Amino acid sequence: MNANKERIRDARLHDRVVSAQDAASWIKDGMTLGMSGFTRAGDVKAVPTALVERAEDESFKVNVFTGASLGSDIDKMFAEANIINKRLPFQADPVMRKKINQGEHLFVDHHLSHTSEWIRHDVIETIDYAILEAIAITEDGTIIPSTSIGNSLVFAENAKNIIVEINTAQPELLEGIHDLYSPAKQGERQPIPLTKPDDRIGDSSIQIDPAKIKGIVFTHQEDSPSTIGQPDEETKIMADHLLDFLRDEIKSGRLDEQLAPLQSGIGSVANAVLHGMVDSEFQNLQVYSEVLQDAVFDLIDAGKVDFASCCSVTLSEDKMQKVFSNFEKYRDKLVMRPQEISNHPEIIRRLGLISINTALEFDIYGNVNSTHVSGTKMMNGIGGSGDFARNAKLAVFVTKSIAKDGNISSIVPFASHIDHTEHDVDVVVTEQGYADLRGLAPRERVPKIIENCAHPLYRDQLWAYYNEALKRGGQTPHVLEKAFSWHANFAEHGTMRERALETV
Amino acid sequence: MNANKERIRDARLHDRVVSAQDAASWIKDGMTLGMSGFTRAGDVKAVPTALVERAEDESFKVNVFTGASLGSDIDKMFAEANIINKRLPFQADPVMRKKINQGEHLFVDHHLSHTSEWIRHDVIETIDYAILEAIAITEDGTIIPSTSIGNSLVFAENAKNIIVEINTAQPELLEGIHDLYSPAKQGERQPIPLTKPDDRIGDSSIQIDPAKIKGIVFTHQEDSPSTIGQPDEETKIMADHLLDFLRDEIKSGRLDEQLAPLQSGIGSVANAVLHGMVDSEFQNLQVYSEVLQDAVFDLIDAGKVDFASCCSVTLSEDKMQKVFSNFEKYRDKLVMRPQEISNHPEIIRRLGLISINTALEFDIYGNVNSTHVSGTKMMNGIGGSGDFARNAKLAVFVTKSIAKDGNISSIVPFASHIDHTEHDVDVVVTEQGYADLRGLAPRERVPKIIENCAHPLYRDQLWAYYNEALKRGGQTPHVLEKAFSWHANFAEHGTMRERALETV
Repeated sequence: MNANKERIRDARLHDRVVSAQDAASWIKDGMTLGMSGFTRAGDVKAVPTALVERAEDESFKVNVFTGASLGSDIDKMFAEANIINKRLPFQADPVMRKKINQGEHLFVDHHLSHTSEWIRHDVIETIDYAILEAIAITEDGTIIPSTSIGNSLVFAENAKNIIVEINTAQPELLEGIHDLYSPAKQGERQPIPLTKPDDRIGDSSIQIDPAKIKGIVFTHQEDSPSTIGQPDEETKIMADHLLDFLRDEIKSGRLDEQLAPLQSGIGSVANAVLHGMVDSEFQNLQVYSEVLQDAVFDLIDAGKVDFASCCSVTLSEDKMQKVFSNFEKYRDKLVMRPQEISNHPEIIRRLGLISINTALEFDIYGNVNSTHVSGTKMMNGIGGSGDFARNAKLAVFVTKSIAKDGNISSIVPFASHIDHTEHDVDVVVTEQGYADLRGLAPRERVPKIIENCAHPLYRDQLWAYYNEALKRGGQTPHVLEKAFSWHANFAEHGTMRERALETV
Repeated sequence: MNANKERIRDARLHDRVVSAQDAASWIKDGMTLGMSGFTRAGDVKAVPTALVERAEDESFKVNVFTGASLGSDIDKMFAEANIINKRLPFQADPVMRKKINQGEHLFVDHHLSHTSEWIRHDVIETIDYAILEAIAITEDGTIIPSTSIGNSLVFAENAKNIIVEINTAQPELLEGIHDLYSPAKQGERQPIPLTKPDDRIGDSSIQIDPAKIKGIVFTHQEDSPSTIGQPDEETKIMADHLLDFLRDEIKSGRLDEQLAPLQSGIGSVANAVLHGMVDSEFQNLQVYSEVLQDAVFDLIDAGKVDFASCCSVTLSEDKMQKVFSNFEKYRDKLVMRPQEISNHPEIIRRLGLISINTALEFDIYGNVNSTHVSGTKMMNGIGGSGDFARNAKLAVFVTKSIAKDGNISSIVPFASHIDHTEHDVDVVVTEQGYADLRGLAPRERVPKIIENCAHPLYRDQLWAYYNEALKRGGQTPHVLEKAFSWHANFAEHGTMRERALETV
């Protein structure tokens, strides 16, 4: 009851405390849940777990909308319990991924800045319950989020009911770093008044009518730590190539040593690229990103990053410990926003970000596949990569040039699924080098991509495809009947390499 | 000399008048020209023609950057004279198209709102000469554009030199309808202060240092009239389907009879769709578009449209006559902006446009090809369709379900070039009906697209492909080795129909 009073500062709400089981019992078959959580950070933990327990005796399905991927095995448990009808906008769990690819869960793969508009304008299912992790409820009944904001604000504003999970394992020190701004409806809204990464434009907590809070659940469970691999030899080489590119931009006068606000997608490669700046000459950097991973805090520690804006903080186990036990050191260098604002085209274009995201594969013309293995099987989702790539000053995609012991080339004749078109991709980077595609016609892009980015194992094969295509002509020459032959060859023979093609 | 004084109100500039031949003689091999002109409107006419004449005796090449496509056969003459190195960001001339597809001209197909950022931030070639059509030069040496703005402002601001073509055939009455606003560099700019289609936020003429004006050429030649076909039976049916969709949106409470500001791409179908609103119940409509075609003026005449914002006015011969001889009637209902502003993601998202653009083909999952015939041959370019589709409240794509007497299906298993991904396409419309794809997973989209939009001739074939794909599973099931078999069949046998496939 002490924790109760400290964390629920509005006495009117003390009697709303319920067990996770009670809260989960309110959720009915067919309902839509808007849950907090973005890349394993700030997800609700107790109510989803209780909901899964219910599924042992009961058959029901729900739609689950979140910020992005969840930790705490929530998506895994949901998938195993088979209680998902529709899931959006992003996930990263192997078990759920399997169910999605079997067609058992409907998955709507969606730009992370767009979900809020669909909810606000009643395009998709109404949120029956917003279930939001918080570190506390304020004196006037507003909700202080924890380690992510994601879609929590738009969920809270538009849900019929709200369940708050107060997680006493989350650092109370986070209070004050949130900046909650919600645009009005389209056609009625004003410009978003943010012109620098460190601008604060909103409230420090979620302002809703406390009457909507139907229940408050207490829990004590840390976020799942990041599972991102540490930089290795190859990701370091990729980082070096990108740093070389940025140095060339400085030489040409298009950037200075402050660069431009940085965005880096989730994943090992993007993390390694940022990490590569720790020992660089770049100075007074700023970050305007979705998720902050370990590297950003290393950059702050190294005095390289002055300020970082995010919608989520996702750290490895060690780093989480270090950051949250020294949080005062970071407090004035951080702000956390809704994903609608961290990923908003208006802001990304205005600030002119340098945006670094991971590709699964790209083709000889620079079209990027971020989502589908062999064009069919969903990996995680497009996430925010489209929000950033389309509107950034520099849209960079990184990937290793080969996978599966060289049996897969990440550079292919025709991307087997296209998430980012040739119009949206500025620079591609592999461990082989980088290709700056800006201002180039398709036929100018091909040699740069093959010679600078493709693995030597596959260069001749790519040239052979392109030279055959060239005979047919066109702005974007292709041999359509062979465009996916590499993927077909991999499916049949376990390799994209020609030798296998020849032995068919 | 009278015209001279009336149209060049700044006496300091009277001695800059030169012949088109003189002006053209300043242009050297390898230079980059930034020319006014957007969808046949407001293009410079005399200097390009004189430049082409020079090519009879001289060998040289230039880069030509414009707003969008040109009229007056300029692109045709450029292509025939073989003086183009690089062309961007859009063209629509058959002769130039052929040269592009033969690889003789480099063509950079680019979002129309993005070119200005490349120029402002020095990413592409510096503009040696901005060559801009004007109706007059003001007392203080600023330039009043004519029937389009396009990229003229950013060209003028960043060019080393400016040549002005004062076209005395263009209506002087246009003075006052232009609204020229230029964002500062990325990272230094403020929010664009436009919250309604009729807001005026800039200057009525291009404010540059008159010292940059190296020459002024007089010409007297009307814009090429629009070649857009009038609405036919099929485009009328498509318009009706779209109106039905909009009515359903009103019934569901997501729109009211004012709808939302409308954008409609260039072309017969988009024009027909707008024309279909003349006899509708919709009221007090607003337009926030690139180019205004005939239909918008019919809607103004019918009292349906209260206000229209554009970056270009492109009319049929008849309509041009009627509009410009009664221009006072339209003056307070129109504003013309740079294409950077008409197409700006910040504004499109803020206003929540209903955006209607033409597809060449789309696939069973809703990926749209706007540019490449059979995935290889450039038609015109992506134009503004990507600017609008990504950021609009409603991204609608329209196309007839079949072409070439039924030998081509516009709905295919896999779009042979992807300009708009599944993430950016809300509604697709053919003469068969419409499919509302919002909030749907890929497997939910397929039946809607096949049953509502595909031509009955091709429905069984599409189902056969999808059912085979389904056996392989995946978020987005495909049979990759057959994904382009329809296009290959068309190339070989002149039809996408199965019968021909069977006789192979």
